[in-house]
Amino acid sequence: MSDFFNGLGPIKYEGPTSENDFAFRRYNPDEVVMGKPLKEHLRFSIAYWHSFAWEGGDPFGGRTFERPWYPQDEMDNARLKADVAFEMFTLLGAPFFCFHDADVRPEGATFAESRDRLNEMADIFERKMDETGVKLLWGTANMFSERRFMSGAATNPDPDVYAYAAASVKACMDVTHRLNGENYVLWGGREGYETLLNTDMKRERDHAIRFLQQVVEYKHKIGFKGAILIEPKPQEPTKHQYDYDVATVYGMLKDAGLEKEVQVNIEQGHAILAGHSFEHELALATALGIFGSIDMNRNDYQSGWDTDQFPNNVPEVALAYYEVLKAGGFTTGGTNFDAKLRRQSLDAEDLILGHVGGMDTCAAGFKAAARMLEDGKLEEAREARYTGWNGEPAMQMLEGTLEDAAARVEAEGLEPQPVSGRQERLENLVNRYL
Amino acid sequence: MSDFFNGLGPIKYEGPTSENDFAFRRYNPDEVVMGKPLKEHLRFSIAYWHSFAWEGGDPFGGRTFERPWYPQDEMDNARLKADVAFEMFTLLGAPFFCFHDADVRPEGATFAESRDRLNEMADIFERKMDETGVKLLWGTANMFSERRFMSGAATNPDPDVYAYAAASVKACMDVTHRLNGENYVLWGGREGYETLLNTDMKRERDHAIRFLQQVVEYKHKIGFKGAILIEPKPQEPTKHQYDYDVATVYGMLKDAGLEKEVQVNIEQGHAILAGHSFEHELALATALGIFGSIDMNRNDYQSGWDTDQFPNNVPEVALAYYEVLKAGGFTTGGTNFDAKLRRQSLDAEDLILGHVGGMDTCAAGFKAAARMLEDGKLEEAREARYTGWNGEPAMQMLEGTLEDAAARVEAEGLEPQPVSGRQERLENLVNRYL
Amino acid sequence: MSDFFNGLGPIKYEGPTSENDFAFRRYNPDEVVMGKPLKEHLRFSIAYWHSFAWEGGDPFGGRTFERPWYPQDEMDNARLKADVAFEMFTLLGAPFFCFHDADVRPEGATFAESRDRLNEMADIFERKMDETGVKLLWGTANMFSERRFMSGAATNPDPDVYAYAAASVKACMDVTHRLNGENYVLWGGREGYETLLNTDMKRERDHAIRFLQQVVEYKHKIGFKGAILIEPKPQEPTKHQYDYDVATVYGMLKDAGLEKEVQVNIEQGHAILAGHSFEHELALATALGIFGSIDMNRNDYQSGWDTDQFPNNVPEVALAYYEVLKAGGFTTGGTNFDAKLRRQSLDAEDLILGHVGGMDTCAAGFKAAARMLEDGKLEEAREARYTGWNGEPAMQMLEGTLEDAAARVEAEGLEPQPVSGRQERLENLVNRYL
Amino acid sequence: MSDFFNGLGPIKYEGPTSENDFAFRRYNPDEVVMGKPLKEHLRFSIAYWHSFAWEGGDPFGGRTFERPWYPQDEMDNARLKADVAFEMFTLLGAPFFCFHDADVRPEGATFAESRDRLNEMADIFERKMDETGVKLLWGTANMFSERRFMSGAATNPDPDVYAYAAASVKACMDVTHRLNGENYVLWGGREGYETLLNTDMKRERDHAIRFLQQVVEYKHKIGFKGAILIEPKPQEPTKHQYDYDVATVYGMLKDAGLEKEVQVNIEQGHAILAGHSFEHELALATALGIFGSIDMNRNDYQSGWDTDQFPNNVPEVALAYYEVLKAGGFTTGGTNFDAKLRRQSLDAEDLILGHVGGMDTCAAGFKAAARMLEDGKLEEAREARYTGWNGEPAMQMLEGTLEDAAARVEAEGLEPQPVSGRQERLENLVNRYL
Ligand SMILES: [Co+2]
Ligand SMILES: [Co+2]
Ligand SMILES: [Co+2]
Ligand SMILES: [Co+2]
Ligand SMILES: [Co+2]
Ligand SMILES: [Co+2]
Ligand SMILES: [Co+2]
Ligand SMILES: [Co+2]
Repeated sequence: MSDFFNGLGPIKYEGPTSENDFAFRRYNPDEVVMGKPLKEHLRFSIAYWHSFAWEGGDPFGGRTFERPWYPQDEMDNARLKADVAFEMFTLLGAPFFCFHDADVRPEGATFAESRDRLNEMADIFERKMDETGVKLLWGTANMFSERRFMSGAATNPDPDVYAYAAASVKACMDVTHRLNGENYVLWGGREGYETLLNTDMKRERDHAIRFLQQVVEYKHKIGFKGAILIEPKPQEPTKHQYDYDVATVYGMLKDAGLEKEVQVNIEQGHAILAGHSFEHELALATALGIFGSIDMNRNDYQSGWDTDQFPNNVPEVALAYYEVLKAGGFTTGGTNFDAKLRRQSLDAEDLILGHVGGMDTCAAGFKAAARMLEDGKLEEAREARYTGWNGEPAMQMLEGTLEDAAARVEAEGLEPQPVSGRQERLENLVNRYL
Repeated sequence: MSDFFNGLGPIKYEGPTSENDFAFRRYNPDEVVMGKPLKEHLRFSIAYWHSFAWEGGDPFGGRTFERPWYPQDEMDNARLKADVAFEMFTLLGAPFFCFHDADVRPEGATFAESRDRLNEMADIFERKMDETGVKLLWGTANMFSERRFMSGAATNPDPDVYAYAAASVKACMDVTHRLNGENYVLWGGREGYETLLNTDMKRERDHAIRFLQQVVEYKHKIGFKGAILIEPKPQEPTKHQYDYDVATVYGMLKDAGLEKEVQVNIEQGHAILAGHSFEHELALATALGIFGSIDMNRNDYQSGWDTDQFPNNVPEVALAYYEVLKAGGFTTGGTNFDAKLRRQSLDAEDLILGHVGGMDTCAAGFKAAARMLEDGKLEEAREARYTGWNGEPAMQMLEGTLEDAAARVEAEGLEPQPVSGRQERLENLVNRYL
Repeated sequence: MSDFFNGLGPIKYEGPTSENDFAFRRYNPDEVVMGKPLKEHLRFSIAYWHSFAWEGGDPFGGRTFERPWYPQDEMDNARLKADVAFEMFTLLGAPFFCFHDADVRPEGATFAESRDRLNEMADIFERKMDETGVKLLWGTANMFSERRFMSGAATNPDPDVYAYAAASVKACMDVTHRLNGENYVLWGGREGYETLLNTDMKRERDHAIRFLQQVVEYKHKIGFKGAILIEPKPQEPTKHQYDYDVATVYGMLKDAGLEKEVQVNIEQGHAILAGHSFEHELALATALGIFGSIDMNRNDYQSGWDTDQFPNNVPEVALAYYEVLKAGGFTTGGTNFDAKLRRQSLDAEDLILGHVGGMDTCAAGFKAAARMLEDGKLEEAREARYTGWNGEPAMQMLEGTLEDAAARVEAEGLEPQPVSGRQERLENLVNRYL
Repeated sequence: MSDFFNGLGPIKYEGPTSENDFAFRRYNPDEVVMGKPLKEHLRFSIAYWHSFAWEGGDPFGGRTFERPWYPQDEMDNARLKADVAFEMFTLLGAPFFCFHDADVRPEGATFAESRDRLNEMADIFERKMDETGVKLLWGTANMFSERRFMSGAATNPDPDVYAYAAASVKACMDVTHRLNGENYVLWGGREGYETLLNTDMKRERDHAIRFLQQVVEYKHKIGFKGAILIEPKPQEPTKHQYDYDVATVYGMLKDAGLEKEVQVNIEQGHAILAGHSFEHELALATALGIFGSIDMNRNDYQSGWDTDQFPNNVPEVALAYYEVLKAGGFTTGGTNFDAKLRRQSLDAEDLILGHVGGMDTCAAGFKAAARMLEDGKLEEAREARYTGWNGEPAMQMLEGTLEDAAARVEAEGLEPQPVSGRQERLENLVNRYL
């Protein structure tokens, strides 16, 4: 047991009136909602990168945190980091975690050494997962931080980088498979461009698609049962990324023939950066049949970059979980906190409290969403609006021709009268469940 | 001949040093570039709506313009409007125009009357087109201004509105066909939602797709030879539109099975609203094989809505035409000025000068783009960056498996070294042609 | 009694568990909070323009609403509109209302006729105010809708428009004074520019300042006891407005010598458009000593224009009222709903429900803010962070010279150590009160 | 002479038709424009930080550049860096440079050591400036990168940090004074907040103001003749900075009583981030009498953060210099390239070419602006619009009362008629000079 958390014990549910900062007020893991304990619905996961690998830097300043596992280029420190990470998972009662290769092991002098170090850390994880019961929600390869990936991974103009990316993903998938990860995620941090002037967009997009196919084929080859997920993001670090948003990814999946094989991991902050609401991206993914998992965080609405803050707005989170529940809830997916402390939040306690607040916010939002769905009033109102479409004539119109549909106007003397969309009434209704 | 333009004669090319406001400085219609006169490359088109139907209102104030064809709800005034419109097309030497049904005829008391009025105006257009040689770039149906369409057209919760939309499109396609329009455009102004709370996104998207299929079937039935174009726009008037951007439309076309049948009409302002550059949308459409035509204008970079201003920045326009030329230039498409005067630009002269400036800007940008493409240095630099991919081993890697590619890393001891992307050098190169 | 609201009775407080759409769940007007009934804290006001004058148009479509007081260019209809307006104020139990001249009377053929009509409506208001007890929060002149103001009012290049603006403000201030308005508001809807190319910014800004001085002088002359408020907005309708945000207005007030005479009316939507949070603008106005009143609404975070929706997010509203309470609460100011129905919300019921939801949201947010302030933990934490500044040496440092301060570093061997900013902890704390 | 630039000789002007990448096409330093050589108008300056201190990192990846002066925490490398820097200044013929303390010397173990190192580098600079004729446009203190400044410098909750900031500024001003810098700049990178929850905005703003006063007093004490400049920026790294934009800084200067003592250094990218055009900020600063200098760069319009790219759009730059010329041109100010290579632009050549392109773009824009101003047509058109204000009655109206102005409406039967703002005509006019 490290002393990083100063003897703090596990965070317990104490209910809404607790005065204890280090307690859950809204998240009672065992509370049964819609027939299942909350913890099985929410499937919380901690992100290794933000909490343990990120050092507090931003474009205008370097590291602010001081952690006993710095410097991070030594294996001993990587092991200490793993100790603290699993302590935190346990303190928080988080059933899952997620990681990139680069979060958990220092880069080696060669690819082989990097992979061996990853495997060594996987041995440690395997043991700790056994001991603690913590599971792996997903693994992924970091193909954006190292200098070699500066112009992309699978979309790099240099085919050797494509090979390197293949090797990186293979190594990470192998580890994810060994650790029984429930998903494998691809985030194409630099699969995009800085300027069209030096970019062959068609070629790069084709390579991205081919790489994805190879990944899926490899998944089947090794018998990995988890889902392959793509995490869309419109930009940052690049000016424009190929997996811009859910709709864009869908077009790529169709071209790849993978729309039944691959789903999306939707991040609130990325939705916002792309000009969408979180619930839009969730609803669209569900409509397209490619909803997989969520990266829960919040983006500052007045900042133009990805701020990855802990969620704290219950009404917003409720609308997101409402879409998740309408999609049938999570299967392999879960609620991964892709959220980091502000760089001024220096203390070990902050690390705990950021997650406690996020988990409480999610629980409150989720429970409101469940009440809303169970009550059924919102769905009733929505469906009532489309009643006309359930009739035989309307359905026939869809099957027929433009001319048939057009002919109805004069034949039946149609002069459609608008009816209220009742947006404010529905917004009020939503607020009743919060 | 109306006296709206106060006896102004046709705008002539007078060259860069002319001091005459009412002359072209950069657009010489007969100047041969890449083997073809400029006018055949650029295929300028005037938009009926902004120049003749819009009255200068904005969300905070009503009409500012005073035109002899107001009020627009009388057929006599519609005829006068047509006179002035064709006078302007002729004064500017614009080879094409575009219109919505609602721009050219007052709404009738019934659908039949509206259609008859449209047909009557088409008779007038037919005669004027004969007389002037002006052609129709495209027609389209306005399915967003009338109250009946407030909740969408093909995506309306009321199936009768779907029928009404079908009748509207049929009438407009019939007229477009009769007038030998080179394209038919669909802009889904209210095919989107104001709030997800009352919206069945999957159903509405399905209806939009089915409607599109019916439109394409009808095109073939009547033997219309023009292209069917969708004009993407992310939002405004709705909070979120189904045809958000090129990538989104592509996914819909794939679902509709229409990616070989339908192309896109890309507007600069809509690209900007969606968070993309104009050249991005053009390059993506070309990469996806769905580039059709352009709505040329400019959006104010500091305004969050669609400002539809005349283009005036030559370097930006050059990058756009460079993509058009790389796509092989226009076939059925053209350069439609979807641009309107500022509402303080009250005079008939402003209407002429807005277009003169826009045409000059386009001509200057186009010629720079042509020089750039003919010179070949930019394409050389781009291709050089991907040289590695032309080798046999790289191509094999794409055909093989993830494991094959991965295996190369250790087998060949790959340690890829980044090379400069040379963005600034290429930006300088572009500036040499401007 | 009109039958516009179909016999609906006054909205009553029924508590959080009520199933009645037409009831308050969170707003109990007589609930005492911090020693005063809620209604005296919140000072709700209904905006005449959005609810009664706006017809549902947007830049892509015309009127959607059907109201018995249309067309609005007849005095009889203006009287009917007033009847319905006061019925609604009464149904909602709103203690205040606000109006522009143009909301309440049709424009006359001359200025004199316009003013006479305004006065006639003021007679009606006076009587209705007596009967109902509803009071006037503020009046204002609409100097942006009519064609004459297309290039600004006090900042118009034409001095005759300045005169017209003076006459308009004088007439509205006279009426506001007569009706015992608690404030008079200036929103400079077109006091800005479309293009710098035709604008003398210094001159226009000087005129805006001089106009403001004249307004303040007139206020004193007639003995109007209310506050003069400026409502900042960054843009829309213009590209850039002179009263961009609170900080910009402050600079103008300083130049006018009016920073003690004039305050600001802060609108949530305008704050967002200017790139600020609502609470930022409130906190800054308080810091500068110019906080006056609020226009409560919400802007869609994904739309780039002013959407003026009813507030529905309690946590956001709570942070806003927290700043209001820290500023000492409202004196002459209040909570004016500068919010409009969505244009698809056609029914009289929607008009009621939009306000009911907004009032409940405000009440819930306000009560949370009050608990937070009374509890004191947040203020304690904030103050603790600055403890060092309360010491004598720190205070002396501010009074001394740069050299004195600098000298301390070496003299005292200063090596300041950062301490956690505890943002997440504080965000969790806030959530406890919601 | 280092071999960093591989024997490249000085960049020469070769005219627009040159095929040489390493030549100026538009910037002829000795070309006389409006009576003065271009180099004396433009006063180009190279920024030490972007070109020599920044290592190519971004939030998602570390250093991409490889420079012989890495690692930068050794004084020997600082000296080598200075050698290369002055070589580049000379190669480019840049008359000025700018630096932060942290750019030029490694941080020492104590403040005293840091300062001594700065002084040692200043000795080197002094000698090199003598040898090369390169001058110092401005110096500044980096008070945002080091961990101690994470919560601000002068606005830090810890008074010891205020002292440290005072010591830092004093040391940098001393050096700037010694090197005959023409200005001293303050950019308050972290003078803002991350969350209002832990921030006393009034106190922090007061401290920022007091600090500024101390800086100005110190300037006078040491007899520094240069200008003190504040560089506004709205956000990034913080959520919200106190020196948000020109208008905000003006309000602070008024409160400080320093509006005659301090000017602004306006950066294109910061203007864009604040929601303004570059020319707006320049025109406003001129109108307020606080225009000082410019940080020339360009921000990507589709990115929400500060991209600091080299300018390449001549029409945009022309509008900026037009405002500079209208302000009378630079006095102590100049054109500082606060611009960095893209992180993929790895080569020494890119460093040269980025600046060559930027200088050519600026020269082309400047010359167009000069032609435009000399020709006078634009100013004539602007002034003509305000002719009415030059008359006696209009001027009297400004001096009189609101009632006087109002009385004119009925007395004179005013019914002002709008006249065209002619925006498109003026945009066309501007394009003639480009
Ligand atoms: Co994520
Ligand atoms: Co993120
Ligand atoms: Co368009
Ligand atoms: Co548009
Ligand atoms: Co308002
Ligand atoms: Co508003
Ligand atoms: Co700068
Ligand atoms: Co910058």
